[in-house]
Amino acid sequence: MIDEILLRKRDGLTLSPAQIRSFVAGVVDGTVTRPQAAALLAFIFVRGLNDEESVTLTEAMTDSGPRLSWPGIEGPFVDKHSTGGVGDKVSLVLAPLWAELGMRVPMISGRGLGHTGGTLDKLEAIPGYRCDLDDASLHRVLREVGCFISGQTAALAPADRILYALRNETQTVACIPLIVASILSKKLAEGLDKLVLDVKVGTGAFMQTPEDARRLAEAMVRVGNGAGVKTRALLTDMSQPLGEACGNALEVMEAIDCLQGKGPADLRKLTLELCGHPDAERVLDSGAAFERFARMARAQGGQLSALQAPAERWELLATESGIVTRCDAWNVGRAAFVVGAGRLSAEDPVDPAVGVMVHKKRGDSVQKGEVLATLWHHDLALERAQAELRTAFAIGAEAPAAALVLGTVEAPAG
Amino acid sequence: MIDEILLRKRDGLTLSPAQIRSFVAGVVDGTVTRPQAAALLAFIFVRGLNDEESVTLTEAMTDSGPRLSWPGIEGPFVDKHSTGGVGDKVSLVLAPLWAELGMRVPMISGRGLGHTGGTLDKLEAIPGYRCDLDDASLHRVLREVGCFISGQTAALAPADRILYALRNETQTVACIPLIVASILSKKLAEGLDKLVLDVKVGTGAFMQTPEDARRLAEAMVRVGNGAGVKTRALLTDMSQPLGEACGNALEVMEAIDCLQGKGPADLRKLTLELCGHPDAERVLDSGAAFERFARMARAQGGQLSALQAPAERWELLATESGIVTRCDAWNVGRAAFVVGAGRLSAEDPVDPAVGVMVHKKRGDSVQKGEVLATLWHHDLALERAQAELRTAFAIGAEAPAAALVLGTVEAPAG
Repeated sequence: MIDEILLRKRDGLTLSPAQIRSFVAGVVDGTVTRPQAAALLAFIFVRGLNDEESVTLTEAMTDSGPRLSWPGIEGPFVDKHSTGGVGDKVSLVLAPLWAELGMRVPMISGRGLGHTGGTLDKLEAIPGYRCDLDDASLHRVLREVGCFISGQTAALAPADRILYALRNETQTVACIPLIVASILSKKLAEGLDKLVLDVKVGTGAFMQTPEDARRLAEAMVRVGNGAGVKTRALLTDMSQPLGEACGNALEVMEAIDCLQGKGPADLRKLTLELCGHPDAERVLDSGAAFERFARMARAQGGQLSALQAPAERWELLATESGIVTRCDAWNVGRAAFVVGAGRLSAEDPVDPAVGVMVHKKRGDSVQKGEVLATLWHHDLALERAQAELRTAFAIGAEAPAAALVLGTVEAPAG
Repeated sequence: MIDEILLRKRDGLTLSPAQIRSFVAGVVDGTVTRPQAAALLAFIFVRGLNDEESVTLTEAMTDSGPRLSWPGIEGPFVDKHSTGGVGDKVSLVLAPLWAELGMRVPMISGRGLGHTGGTLDKLEAIPGYRCDLDDASLHRVLREVGCFISGQTAALAPADRILYALRNETQTVACIPLIVASILSKKLAEGLDKLVLDVKVGTGAFMQTPEDARRLAEAMVRVGNGAGVKTRALLTDMSQPLGEACGNALEVMEAIDCLQGKGPADLRKLTLELCGHPDAERVLDSGAAFERFARMARAQGGQLSALQAPAERWELLATESGIVTRCDAWNVGRAAFVVGAGRLSAEDPVDPAVGVMVHKKRGDSVQKGEVLATLWHHDLALERAQAELRTAFAIGAEAPAAALVLGTVEAPAG
């Protein structure tokens, strides 16, 4: 069947559901060879997939492994996925916030290769925090706490692991239907009722333009809803870091601030937008969301009181007075990365104690000599990090107008 | 470099000569993985290659192995390549004919997977004929006889072997620049001055329409000349078999007839057109071309006098009188194939003694009860072969007009 599948997509034709399922099954059982899979990914890159093909591909990838289910636990089951950005610690706030609001949040997250670690790396800055819970433990924590944030078990959506590695190998990563299938196949395996997507746009994001981000968001919303999960998406700004903290332990501390009704306004605002519940502000301000987070951390083995202390400090001072016109997410991210907050390959460790705090962001007034940002480091690549931070900031007379939430994408009615 | 190469061709951009050479070298030394090579073939299938890219790819594939050279032998060195058809035994006639006319013909040929065997299989119907000559023997036979017909040594154009297998695996065979590079890379390795291509069109050929065949012929002529070999092409009819014999020993006998100035008119005519020399007819009629063939066969170990005798005979009789309106190459080829003249996989043997003789072709008058074709068989798949032969023929009032040579493609002037 793979010959016919290659032939059709090669020639720009539509694949049937049976053909797509056969391809995914063949990739996993080895009857479709790696070169055949690579060629099909290349044809899909050029020819595309329509929505029905995308839904089938996504579901077939989900069904290449087990779907988690939550017998004995009452939903609704909800989750959020972000396409990733600098300083994005929203998951740490949103999971316990939703749980406190009566939802159940079975959040399977990742580590990723980025400026800072992924959500799991951030949580592992809490000594003892376990991200490798087995299915029974996931079920127990979800039942007892209402949320968990843990890693993908080896069995989840194995087709995605194989296809993602091939896409990396063959320059077929930047393809919307393949991105959508990769992201959503893992989310569908969580047994969700609702999914909120945070599609980031800007220098610190995968998508550099609002147009590209909107195309991705719309495809994810169509495919998510097509696969039976109520899905909406926000397009949000990633031209400057989210919040002030960029680094693993630093971000946990900032998330805790937010969970206690404090912390940076933009982090709070985005969390509330993604949460989408009228009582969310009250729950943050009451401290109840923080208590829920603390219970989750304990249930997963973490000792919040032992959170990693920051490393050595270096401060970037403003060389003139004025308005901050740029606090570039990419450069801030690079600074955090080079001092050890992120990783280049999946096996590398991250340093939980290092990173950047930005004290001034776009539109803020600053006096010459004031601290723009603090770099926490272990004397690794310090000069490169300093240079990145200097490049990150610009001071002028007037900051460009910029919104945090650039748009929303909802499921089509009916 | 492979990442940049994939990225460029994925996005429809042109590859530089250095990039193409790096790709081919990487395929052979393994630094380009099979999935990466498969993805690039898929991108090339969809995006195409321009002439300069095609020439570079062809030459790089040639240079992935040694180029043969003929020190101490005076040229010009010439060869012919046919895209393959039913009853095509022209190479057996043309190589000694050219040699007799003063050219040197270092013909590396193949076995192929087809209705009947390839040129080498046909020659191996001559007991003792060796198609596995080493480089020293090739040189000796070319010097002493003026021509040889032998098989590809393992070292020749190894990139083609790898890429051809991948194309088969990934449905990227039917791609003109890849076909051209595959064919010409092996021919360029022969150290040629001139090359004539016979691009066949019709039911018994790879190309089914004159338009497709012309596109292939034009691309081969451009790329061949671009690579420094004076190249021309004929487009020729393959809607009915060439000559009367379709089967390995049968075709050798018919080639010998032609070499002695006898045999079917269409075989003689096409051979003369491909030969392109004013004295060719005289040399065939004199018997000198046959003597040259016999010397080549002897030099390669063959005993012409021991040529395999035909097998069991079955005759297809005309069920009505009239004009033959169809003698379909595909059906005749299938009949020869099912009785054992061809092979499905490279390791299978062919039966030299079986095949089909067609006694009537398009435009011939026939009386009810006359023999249309003779099937030589070993009782294998006899009924299927009979059914194919019955389907091959149609008799009516008037045959459609049809030319043997449909066109020629010459190098552009200058």
